[in-house]
Amino acid sequence: MQYLAKISYLGTGFCGSQVQPGKRTVQGELNRATAALFHSPCAITGCSRTDSGVHALAYYVSIVPQQPSLCARIPADRLPYAIRPYLPDDISVLAAREMPDAFHPRYSVREKEYRYEVWNAAQPSPFLRGRAWHYPRHVDARALQDMQAAAKELVGTHDFASFMAQGSHVTDTVRTVFNCTCERNGDFLRFRVRGNGFLYHMVRIMVGTLLGVAEGKYRPDGMRQILLQRDRKQAGETAPAEGLYLFDVKYNPPVFL
Amino acid sequence: MQYLAKISYLGTGFCGSQVQPGKRTVQGELNRATAALFHSPCAITGCSRTDSGVHALAYYVSIVPQQPSLCARIPADRLPYAIRPYLPDDISVLAAREMPDAFHPRYSVREKEYRYEVWNAAQPSPFLRGRAWHYPRHVDARALQDMQAAAKELVGTHDFASFMAQGSHVTDTVRTVFNCTCERNGDFLRFRVRGNGFLYHMVRIMVGTLLGVAEGKYRPDGMRQILLQRDRKQAGETAPAEGLYLFDVKYNPPVFL
Repeated sequence: MQYLAKISYLGTGFCGSQVQPGKRTVQGELNRATAALFHSPCAITGCSRTDSGVHALAYYVSIVPQQPSLCARIPADRLPYAIRPYLPDDISVLAAREMPDAFHPRYSVREKEYRYEVWNAAQPSPFLRGRAWHYPRHVDARALQDMQAAAKELVGTHDFASFMAQGSHVTDTVRTVFNCTCERNGDFLRFRVRGNGFLYHMVRIMVGTLLGVAEGKYRPDGMRQILLQRDRKQAGETAPAEGLYLFDVKYNPPVFL
Repeated sequence: MQYLAKISYLGTGFCGSQVQPGKRTVQGELNRATAALFHSPCAITGCSRTDSGVHALAYYVSIVPQQPSLCARIPADRLPYAIRPYLPDDISVLAAREMPDAFHPRYSVREKEYRYEVWNAAQPSPFLRGRAWHYPRHVDARALQDMQAAAKELVGTHDFASFMAQGSHVTDTVRTVFNCTCERNGDFLRFRVRGNGFLYHMVRIMVGTLLGVAEGKYRPDGMRQILLQRDRKQAGETAPAEGLYLFDVKYNPPVFL
């Protein structure tokens, strides 16, 4: 038996999700909090790796106490309340349920959705420091249409090697993007990307490249060509971490939480 | 000649808007930034006083350089860009224009709008620390209707002495509230209050009292009675500062900025 917890975190104060010695990470804080709650270490496994500064509105972790009998002490629906005193303010456990041992929070993922927030106003907003990319160059209606056309070309099953940061050791760079959109909402430009998996920095490079389309650096119908080249240098800049949100994760079979 | 600047600030890091010796305030930061920009002190006057932790999405300040000729150095439309390097991240100058000397940023106010944000979910959100009041007790549809009915009774010209914090030395406690609403948006409860002026803590006491209606402490038709008593003890708790936003300020005659 294990717990599956749905958590949310503000990425600003974390050096990413995975444990790194001497650095403050989401997993490190969860290790500490669960060990305090269960009076013994727990195995924590996350659904995904997020970089330093990246946020999560819905991130899933399994929590396996050293002795399974410890689970009996705290019913899953009470876990969010029980763990709260041990967690810092920038992580919340929103909900939890029990899952069979066979479930794996990363391997069972069917789909992830990311959002990317751009603050497209002349002046920065004090409310969005670390929470959206301030991109002051105005994206007009025509440029937005160009980005939307380019975003459509990224949908489908493709080799996304051009959209993977250098230094990654992944060999299979084929992924399926189900949906990729960009919309304006007041001074925000909001990108949504759903897919069956993502390469290192893939969403941030997609956003940086689409804004490159808005700037006229790339043609709206140029994304297929960039994909075919399988060369990181053909795509655009990597948008900064602070605008990126892991928005939702779906499992196969579905998990309701 | 003076500048009128529209600014925005995240209240979390400030001991309110007005200068206080030895404390970090919005006006203190503006004094420092404008003195650096104009190489001499400026007189800064704000449109309103906001408490420690209260936010502003639109707040107006007049900036009067010691020597009027200094205004000529920086056109008003460039002021937001020119001052940015001297401002901390939690204040932005959104826009600025020139105004005649007769204009006063506080005395010329015709109307102010406040918003109050309540996060009405079981668990706190890491994204809303210091930005909304976490109120975990669920407000259902019936309780929301009761609050909406009570909110309507607060609209109009009334003596709001019951909704003024003790210790205030204001003698005329009559104010006109043009609009007072409460709506649910997902897990948010959003209060909007527009009026010609507000007493000390007035909006926060209104919100605390309306949530008292949701809790059954006060009758939905009990607000008139509370107003008539002119007694702070008859109204509810003061909602915390962190959920309060000065949303907009309107002038007579209108100022477009």
